[in-house]
Amino acid sequence: IKKTWVEMKDFSRKAVEMGRLDPRKVIFAIKMGLALSLTSLLIFWKGSHEDIAQYSIWAILTVIVMFEFSIGATFIKGFNRGLGTICAGILAFCFAELSVVAGKFEEVVIVISIFIIGFCASYLKLYPTMKPYEYGFRVFVLTYCILMIAGNRTREYTEAILTRLVLIAAGAGVCLVVNICFFPIWAGESLHKLVVKNFKDLATSLEGCVNGYLKCVEYKRIPSKILTYQAADDPLYNCYRSVIQSTSQEDTLLGFATWEPPHGRYRYNYPWENFVKVSGAVKHCAFMVMALHGCILSEIQAPPERRKVFSSELQKVGAEGAKVLHELGNKLEKMEKLSAGDILKNVHDAAAELQKKIDHKSYLLVNSESWEIGGRPKEFEDLIDVEDENMTLGSKSLSEAVLDLRSVPVDTTSLPQQCDDDARNMFIKWPSNVSANARSFPKGDDLKTYESASALSLATFASHLIEFVARLGNVVDSFEELSMKANFKDPPIMNMSPEPCKKGTATWVV
Amino acid sequence: IKKTWVEMKDFSRKAVEMGRLDPRKVIFAIKMGLALSLTSLLIFWKGSHEDIAQYSIWAILTVIVMFEFSIGATFIKGFNRGLGTICAGILAFCFAELSVVAGKFEEVVIVISIFIIGFCASYLKLYPTMKPYEYGFRVFVLTYCILMIAGNRTREYTEAILTRLVLIAAGAGVCLVVNICFFPIWAGESLHKLVVKNFKDLATSLEGCVNGYLKCVEYKRIPSKILTYQAADDPLYNCYRSVIQSTSQEDTLLGFATWEPPHGRYRYNYPWENFVKVSGAVKHCAFMVMALHGCILSEIQAPPERRKVFSSELQKVGAEGAKVLHELGNKLEKMEKLSAGDILKNVHDAAAELQKKIDHKSYLLVNSESWEIGGRPKEFEDLIDVEDENMTLGSKSLSEAVLDLRSVPVDTTSLPQQCDDDARNMFIKWPSNVSANARSFPKGDDLKTYESASALSLATFASHLIEFVARLGNVVDSFEELSMKANFKDPPIMNMSPEPCKKGTATWVV
Repeated sequence: IKKTWVEMKDFSRKAVEMGRLDPRKVIFAIKMGLALSLTSLLIFWKGSHEDIAQYSIWAILTVIVMFEFSIGATFIKGFNRGLGTICAGILAFCFAELSVVAGKFEEVVIVISIFIIGFCASYLKLYPTMKPYEYGFRVFVLTYCILMIAGNRTREYTEAILTRLVLIAAGAGVCLVVNICFFPIWAGESLHKLVVKNFKDLATSLEGCVNGYLKCVEYKRIPSKILTYQAADDPLYNCYRSVIQSTSQEDTLLGFATWEPPHGRYRYNYPWENFVKVSGAVKHCAFMVMALHGCILSEIQAPPERRKVFSSELQKVGAEGAKVLHELGNKLEKMEKLSAGDILKNVHDAAAELQKKIDHKSYLLVNSESWEIGGRPKEFEDLIDVEDENMTLGSKSLSEAVLDLRSVPVDTTSLPQQCDDDARNMFIKWPSNVSANARSFPKGDDLKTYESASALSLATFASHLIEFVARLGNVVDSFEELSMKANFKDPPIMNMSPEPCKKGTATWVV
Repeated sequence: IKKTWVEMKDFSRKAVEMGRLDPRKVIFAIKMGLALSLTSLLIFWKGSHEDIAQYSIWAILTVIVMFEFSIGATFIKGFNRGLGTICAGILAFCFAELSVVAGKFEEVVIVISIFIIGFCASYLKLYPTMKPYEYGFRVFVLTYCILMIAGNRTREYTEAILTRLVLIAAGAGVCLVVNICFFPIWAGESLHKLVVKNFKDLATSLEGCVNGYLKCVEYKRIPSKILTYQAADDPLYNCYRSVIQSTSQEDTLLGFATWEPPHGRYRYNYPWENFVKVSGAVKHCAFMVMALHGCILSEIQAPPERRKVFSSELQKVGAEGAKVLHELGNKLEKMEKLSAGDILKNVHDAAAELQKKIDHKSYLLVNSESWEIGGRPKEFEDLIDVEDENMTLGSKSLSEAVLDLRSVPVDTTSLPQQCDDDARNMFIKWPSNVSANARSFPKGDDLKTYESASALSLATFASHLIEFVARLGNVVDSFEELSMKANFKDPPIMNMSPEPCKKGTATWVV
C-alpha cells in the first residue's frame, strides 16, 4: 500500500509539473469543464420541457466529442458532426416513409436499411481521401440508426429529428463559444512554434555533431535504441530525431490550421502548407546531420590526428551552418523577411575553404602504401612523414589547423595507443571474415585496409558537411517562398549589428 | 453536371478498385453492417420493455465506437468503454446521494460536480502515458454527465445505471462476436506483414540506388518534393521513405497487437515489440540507403569513368546486401530461424573486396594536382594517365572492373562532355561565391576543387555502402533475438540449394 501511495504522489507531482510547463493544458481542462457545466445548466433551465430532458444526451455527447484541444480540430469535428447528422436525418426521413409503406415488414425494412447504410459508410470511410471525415461517417451511422429505431417506437420521426438537431446545435454552440472566447488555443500557432523548434533543434544537433566529431567522442557501446531507431537519452540524437519524427504531427496540425479563421498575426488564407514545406526542407538537412552522427557512430573512425588537420575548417562550417539555422529560426519566429545580402555567404565561404583544404591535403585522406600502381614514391612518402612529424610535435607545420596534438607515433599505426582497445572492439565488428575468426588484433594487409577506410571516413564526414551546406540553400529557398506568400514584415533597418547567435536560445530548445 | 457525373464514376471505380486490392476492407464493412443489424434486431426483439427501447442509443453507440478495423483495437476500445462506464457509474452513484442530501441546491451540486469531473478527466487525459486511454476518459465524462442529468429527472439512479450497463454489455458482446468469429482481422498479422514489407522495400531501394549510381542516373531537376521530404512519384525514394515513415503505424499496430489473444501462428505473450525492434534496425539501414540516394541527388557527382572502375565491387555489395535483406524478409514471413552458417558471409566478403579495391586505387579518389606538398611527382602522374587511357580505350587495364567506357578525354576535365550542361547547372548551385556571381563555367582553381570534390563523392558512396553492410549485422542480431523469443521454427534441412533471390518478390512489394 505504501508503494502505491508513493507512486500516486509521484504521479500527481508529475501531473502538476505538466501543467506548469504547458499552461495551455490546464486552460484546456478548465474550458472543457466550463463547457460541460454550461450545457448542463442549459438543460436544467429548459428541463421543464420533457423532450429536451429526455434527449439531453445529444447535447452532452456533442460537447464531449467536439471539444478538442485546438480550435481547428473543434471546427473539423463540428463540421463532421453537423454534416453527418443532417445527411442521416434526410436519409432517415426517406427510409422512414418507405418502412411505413411496407406495413407488416416495417422492421425488416429498417434492419436491412441499417445494414446497407452501415456497410456503405464503413467502406467509404476507409477510402484514403476520406480520412479527415472519418468521424463524420460515425456520426452519420449513429444518427441514422437511432432515428430509425427510436422513430419506429414513437412514430414521431419529424419531431425526433428536429429536437435532436436543436440539442446538437446548442451543444455545438456552447463548444465554439467557450473554445474561442476563453484563451483560444490555435493549431496554427502550434505549427508555427513546432517549425521554429525544428530549426533550433537541428542547429543544436549540428553543432553537437561537429564538436563531438572533433573531440573524437566515441560511444563505448552504442545504445541499442539508436541502432533500432527508438527514442533514446542521447540529446544530440534526440534533437534530430524529433525533427525527423515531427512529420505526422505537422500533418495533423496543418489539417487543423487550414480550418481556423484568421487570428492574431495570421491573416485569412494563410499559406500553412508552406510552413510544412519549410519544415520538410529542414528535415532534408536533418538527414545529413543524421549522416554526420552516423560517422560518429560508425565502427570505422578516422584517426584523431587527421581530424585535427581539418579541425578549424570543419568547426567553422558547423558553426556557420548552425548560425544560419538559428537566424532563420529567429526570423521565422518573428515572421520577418530575410535581410538584404546573402545569408548563406559566410557558410558558403567556410564550405569552400573546407573544400580547398581537402583538395590540398587529400593525400591525408587516402593510404598510398598499397597503391597497385607501385606505392607512393620515396620522396613523396618523406613529405608525408615530415608533415606527420610536424603534426606530432605540434610545431609550425604546413597546416594552419594544428592545434594540440598528442605525441603519438602516427606512421606505425594511425590508431592512437589509448584507444587501442576500442579500436580492437571496432575491428571485431568490422565486416571481414578474417578479423571475425581471430579475436587478435589484425595485422598486415587487413590493418592497412582498415587504415585506409579509417582515413576515408574523414572524407565522408567532410563531404556530408558540404552536402549539408548545399541543402541549406534549399531551406533558404523555401523560407523565401513562405515569407513572400505569408507576407512577412520587412526586417528592421540594418545599421544595428547583425543579430549575434545567442547561446541562450540554443539551450532553450533542448 | 456532366463533370460531376464523370467524377462520381471515377470515384466509384476507385472505390471498387480499393476493395479488390484489399478485400479486408470489404469484409470489415460487411461486418460493421452485420453488427449494427444484429443490435437493432436485438432491440426490436426485446423492445416490448419500455426502458430498453428508450435507452437503445447506448447499445448502438457502443457498437459504433467499439467496432474497429482490427481485433486488438476493438479490445482496447471495449476495455476503455467498460472501465470508463463503471468508474462513472460508481462516482455518479456517490454524487447522486450527495446531491439528494443537498436538497434545494441539488442542481448546483450537480453542475459543480460536472465541472470538477470534466476538468480532472480532461487534464489527466493529456498526461503522456494516458494516451491509449483517451477514449476511456471521454466515455467516463459522457456517462457521468448523462447519469447525473437523467437521474436528476427520473430519480431512478440505480435503475438507469443498470439498464445502461446491460445495453452497453449487449452492444459490446455483439461487437466482439461479430468481429472475432467472421474473418477476423488481426493487428498482429498486419504488423508482421508491414515489417516484412519493410525488408523488401529496402532491398528494392538498395538495388535501385546502386544500379542508378553505376548507370549515372542524374536528376535533371530534383523534384522539390524530395527536397522537402514529401511523398513523391520516385519509386526508389518512395520505397525507403515508406520504410522510414512506418514508425507511427508500427507503434499503433504494436499497441493493438499486444491486446490480441493468441491466434494462428502467434502464441500467447508473443514478443511483438521485437518485431518493432527489427523494423527499427531496418530503418537504421534505411538511413544509409537514404544517404546513398543522397549521393545520386547531390550536386557534386563523381565522373562516370571512375565509377566504372569500382563498378563490379559496388554492384556486388549492393546485390549481396539486397539478397540478405530478401532472405531475412522471407525468413520472417515464413517465421523461420536463420540457417546455420553466416548469412552475412557473402556480403562481408564483397564489402571487404570493395574496401581492398578502394585501398589499392585510392589515388583515383583524390586529386593530387593541387597537393600543397608539391603536387604529384611526374612518374606518378604518368601512371595515372596510363590508367586513365587504358580506361578510356576500354582495353585491358589494371582494373578488373572496366566494362564499357565511353571514349572521353578524361584528364582535361573529369566531367564528360554530354552532361556538360547538367554539370554547369550543378555548379551554379555549388556553394562557392566565386561560381555564384559568374554564371559562366568555372575555370582554373575552382574547377580543380570541384574535380576533387567530385572524386571524393565516389569515396563517400563507397563508405556508405560499407557502413550499410556494417549496419546489416545489427539487423541480423535483432532478427536472431526475435527468432529466439518468438520461437520461430527451424529452417528446413539445407541440402536443397539455398533459396535463390527471386525477382518476383521484389516486384510484389513495389
